[in-house]
Amino acid sequence: MANPLPPRSAWKDRLHEIIFEADTRAGKRFDIVLLWVILASVAVVMLESVQLIADAYSTWLFVLEWTFTIFFTIEYILRLISVRKPWRYAISFFGIVDLLSILPSYLALFQLGQSSLRIIRIMRLLRVFRVLKLFGFVRQAKQLRFALRASSPKIAVFLLAVLVATVLMGTVMYIIEDPKDGFTSIPRSIYWAIVTLTTVGYGDIAPQTALGQALAGVIMIIGYAIIAVPTGIVSLEMSKADNSNTLSCSSCGKEGHDDDATYCKFCAEEL
Amino acid sequence: MANPLPPRSAWKDRLHEIIFEADTRAGKRFDIVLLWVILASVAVVMLESVQLIADAYSTWLFVLEWTFTIFFTIEYILRLISVRKPWRYAISFFGIVDLLSILPSYLALFQLGQSSLRIIRIMRLLRVFRVLKLFGFVRQAKQLRFALRASSPKIAVFLLAVLVATVLMGTVMYIIEDPKDGFTSIPRSIYWAIVTLTTVGYGDIAPQTALGQALAGVIMIIGYAIIAVPTGIVSLEMSKADNSNTLSCSSCGKEGHDDDATYCKFCAEEL
Amino acid sequence: MANPLPPRSAWKDRLHEIIFEADTRAGKRFDIVLLWVILASVAVVMLESVQLIADAYSTWLFVLEWTFTIFFTIEYILRLISVRKPWRYAISFFGIVDLLSILPSYLALFQLGQSSLRIIRIMRLLRVFRVLKLFGFVRQAKQLRFALRASSPKIAVFLLAVLVATVLMGTVMYIIEDPKDGFTSIPRSIYWAIVTLTTVGYGDIAPQTALGQALAGVIMIIGYAIIAVPTGIVSLEMSKADNSNTLSCSSCGKEGHDDDATYCKFCAEEL
Amino acid sequence: MANPLPPRSAWKDRLHEIIFEADTRAGKRFDIVLLWVILASVAVVMLESVQLIADAYSTWLFVLEWTFTIFFTIEYILRLISVRKPWRYAISFFGIVDLLSILPSYLALFQLGQSSLRIIRIMRLLRVFRVLKLFGFVRQAKQLRFALRASSPKIAVFLLAVLVATVLMGTVMYIIEDPKDGFTSIPRSIYWAIVTLTTVGYGDIAPQTALGQALAGVIMIIGYAIIAVPTGIVSLEMSKADNSNTLSCSSCGKEGHDDDATYCKFCAEEL
Repeated sequence: MANPLPPRSAWKDRLHEIIFEADTRAGKRFDIVLLWVILASVAVVMLESVQLIADAYSTWLFVLEWTFTIFFTIEYILRLISVRKPWRYAISFFGIVDLLSILPSYLALFQLGQSSLRIIRIMRLLRVFRVLKLFGFVRQAKQLRFALRASSPKIAVFLLAVLVATVLMGTVMYIIEDPKDGFTSIPRSIYWAIVTLTTVGYGDIAPQTALGQALAGVIMIIGYAIIAVPTGIVSLEMSKADNSNTLSCSSCGKEGHDDDATYCKFCAEEL
Repeated sequence: MANPLPPRSAWKDRLHEIIFEADTRAGKRFDIVLLWVILASVAVVMLESVQLIADAYSTWLFVLEWTFTIFFTIEYILRLISVRKPWRYAISFFGIVDLLSILPSYLALFQLGQSSLRIIRIMRLLRVFRVLKLFGFVRQAKQLRFALRASSPKIAVFLLAVLVATVLMGTVMYIIEDPKDGFTSIPRSIYWAIVTLTTVGYGDIAPQTALGQALAGVIMIIGYAIIAVPTGIVSLEMSKADNSNTLSCSSCGKEGHDDDATYCKFCAEEL
Repeated sequence: MANPLPPRSAWKDRLHEIIFEADTRAGKRFDIVLLWVILASVAVVMLESVQLIADAYSTWLFVLEWTFTIFFTIEYILRLISVRKPWRYAISFFGIVDLLSILPSYLALFQLGQSSLRIIRIMRLLRVFRVLKLFGFVRQAKQLRFALRASSPKIAVFLLAVLVATVLMGTVMYIIEDPKDGFTSIPRSIYWAIVTLTTVGYGDIAPQTALGQALAGVIMIIGYAIIAVPTGIVSLEMSKADNSNTLSCSSCGKEGHDDDATYCKFCAEEL
Repeated sequence: MANPLPPRSAWKDRLHEIIFEADTRAGKRFDIVLLWVILASVAVVMLESVQLIADAYSTWLFVLEWTFTIFFTIEYILRLISVRKPWRYAISFFGIVDLLSILPSYLALFQLGQSSLRIIRIMRLLRVFRVLKLFGFVRQAKQLRFALRASSPKIAVFLLAVLVATVLMGTVMYIIEDPKDGFTSIPRSIYWAIVTLTTVGYGDIAPQTALGQALAGVIMIIGYAIIAVPTGIVSLEMSKADNSNTLSCSSCGKEGHDDDATYCKFCAEEL
């Protein structure tokens, strides 16, 4: 089944076009149907978790769930058939997501695994990224990913510094504050420090002593000021990604040249 | 009534100038009066909802409300009269807002619809955008709209990713945390995940287990780091909008002049 | 007293130099002393409000307060003497702040006004901006002010849109949610909408219905996404302020030219 | 012991290379081992503070703690031996951190100081910055530090303004709100103002009066709008740091080359 490039019948090509691409009318229609089925099936998983609805409409939810599962199963099989290398698809990211979208229902049928396992079906939602091409968002997504990847080393250093700061601040608060106000252990105090530094501020744990409140104020102002750092990083990389996305060298084919470049920075060929 | 370009009497032109423009003295005065009436009428709607005030000053509020309604009714009729194509005005965005500003009061008069319907009158507030030109804010608003429209595809991809993340994180928290701490269903857990990721952090639902708090910490730090993404996007588009919005010199053809420039900064030609 | 440019004795010039400037050794020393006295006197006002401390150390606080008041009174008189136009100083922003820093203490002495009036003394804190020049921060402050002033029209349009949005969203939540969960009136619901949109999220008022929580989620995500807008505005203006701060035209003297400008954009003179 | 540049034996040089550098295989291995020991020892300090775990596994934690202490002690001695100027290392930032990582355990052994003193051991976490070079993050960290240092004067002015604003707003809220709602003193009200302005929003103290809520709304919107200021500052400095950090071509002298460039983009000369 996994032979490289077998002679392919025309209907397989056609199937591939419909299921995997969004250029043709049929491909677009398939993607739209798929999008709605995904959203509906995720809604069903959510509604099942609401006790009142689960009790009142259990039969409906059961029928809907199996309709979606069968739909996804057929789709999964069609995908396996239509691709040239089924195995490679099966172990790709989306291949695994596609499998995890249907497996829990069958396992539950045969009494395998806990029923709570069925919640894995929520991963179906990840499949919406498949139909991104429908909206012409692929370029946008690529550019965002590009900027984020370029920012990641700096963001990592920043987050490391933030984490070290929250550990140290959390420990200081653990010493200052009374355990009965919520600062019962260092990990819990670190949790509080993260809640505070990121300006989330639940208020389930809050300092009560004057010294603790003063330190909390300092942490807040630091958190408020340093949010500028990842923003500055991403802004910079995004502006670079935007500038450098246009050209690709005719000699070495590499991308990422600046707008004002006359020669390829990798092979010195004129652009 | 909808005949294109009928011969128009001079007073209609004059009326149009006063009501729709802000160039003449009379037009400016009309806009200022309108602004205050809008704000006052919105204040009345708000105050009506405060039980204490509604009980103590019901007559006053009733009189004020009808004064404003009659004012807006006359204004609406004058607008219909003064425009060349009344029907087109009536179905335009501001035409509908203008109608919705007065209709609920009349419906309540004839006992049609619930009294709660009258709250629609708050939409009068949208009319303040009409008088924006009074402050010379039109260009600013246009530039902002321009940058936001240019950012919207990237922002959409970003928000899609954020929503998928909150659904998955909310589901994981629903599994980890005890329902009696507020994580009673997946939708409610997703609500919690949104509250946390956006750094709002009400604290009405908060994780209690060590594992849940650890995951919450991760969500917070992600939320804190990725706020940089829309910021980077908008910054970039805003800087582009700013550059592209300006003049280009008639002599040397170069762009990039400031708003307050009188002469070309490259060739000293008058702009 | 307000004669323009009277013949000035040397000691007045010297006094002016010490009190108003930070270039000389004496001027610097005076500013440092002043800074500490301001901070100490503000600390005294704060501590007076803490019941426990006010009870235990009332005599100390009284003595300290009058020491500072007398110091500031002498300083105020010296300032009046040393400036060329005392009246103009007296009605300037800092002149009024200087007066308000000492007046409440004297009024309290003569039993004029409520004792709560004495809290106005906290305005002494505003005087720290006087000694900004001590740290060479004047240029930084100027640049920030410059960027903020340039951003203000756009920020104003943005805040107007945000305010209109919070009013409309608050009203919708007032209709959806039960008054007993805190949404007792439209103004209070608007307060909730501001708390949510700005990602503050106290949690003193929080939606309880599914519909309300869904709408709240939408508001949060909007708030999370649009924070990018003022950031983008300020980033842009700050980068412009930074670029244009360097040159000043030799012919017309105006500032604000871009880095790449060859000719003055106001008078076409070569830079 | 502190003689400058004594004749060094080869094994000292080799030791220095392993402990202080990450270029050789042995140096990298040492850094990886050190990283894990640091993280594990910090985990032990944290777990000791959790009552349940401390009770159940006290022996294990005791053994682990002493293993790590002895490891760090040997490492500290080796560092002292291998550097040319031991005293200079001992009083350097990391030298003191290294000492504070082991000292509390020995003091506790000899019953010196309170047992709560042992928490200082958490400072071991700071040592992770030592192994930053392992991941090639040194350049990123340098660039971030560079941008932050350049931003600091402006950030300082901004934070000064924010602090003055919170003091004044806190005082006004102290006058407006009832002490029994949490606004018991000016310092506590300032704490509330910081919590609100930074959009943390615990909700442990929240305004109850209409006037207080209106003012709180204003503070929130200000806080929401001015977060743009530090962001704008850091974005600007980061973009400058990025531009100025790069190479300049030896042939044409132009700057602005990317980090991954091999040839000058202006004249195709090898960089």
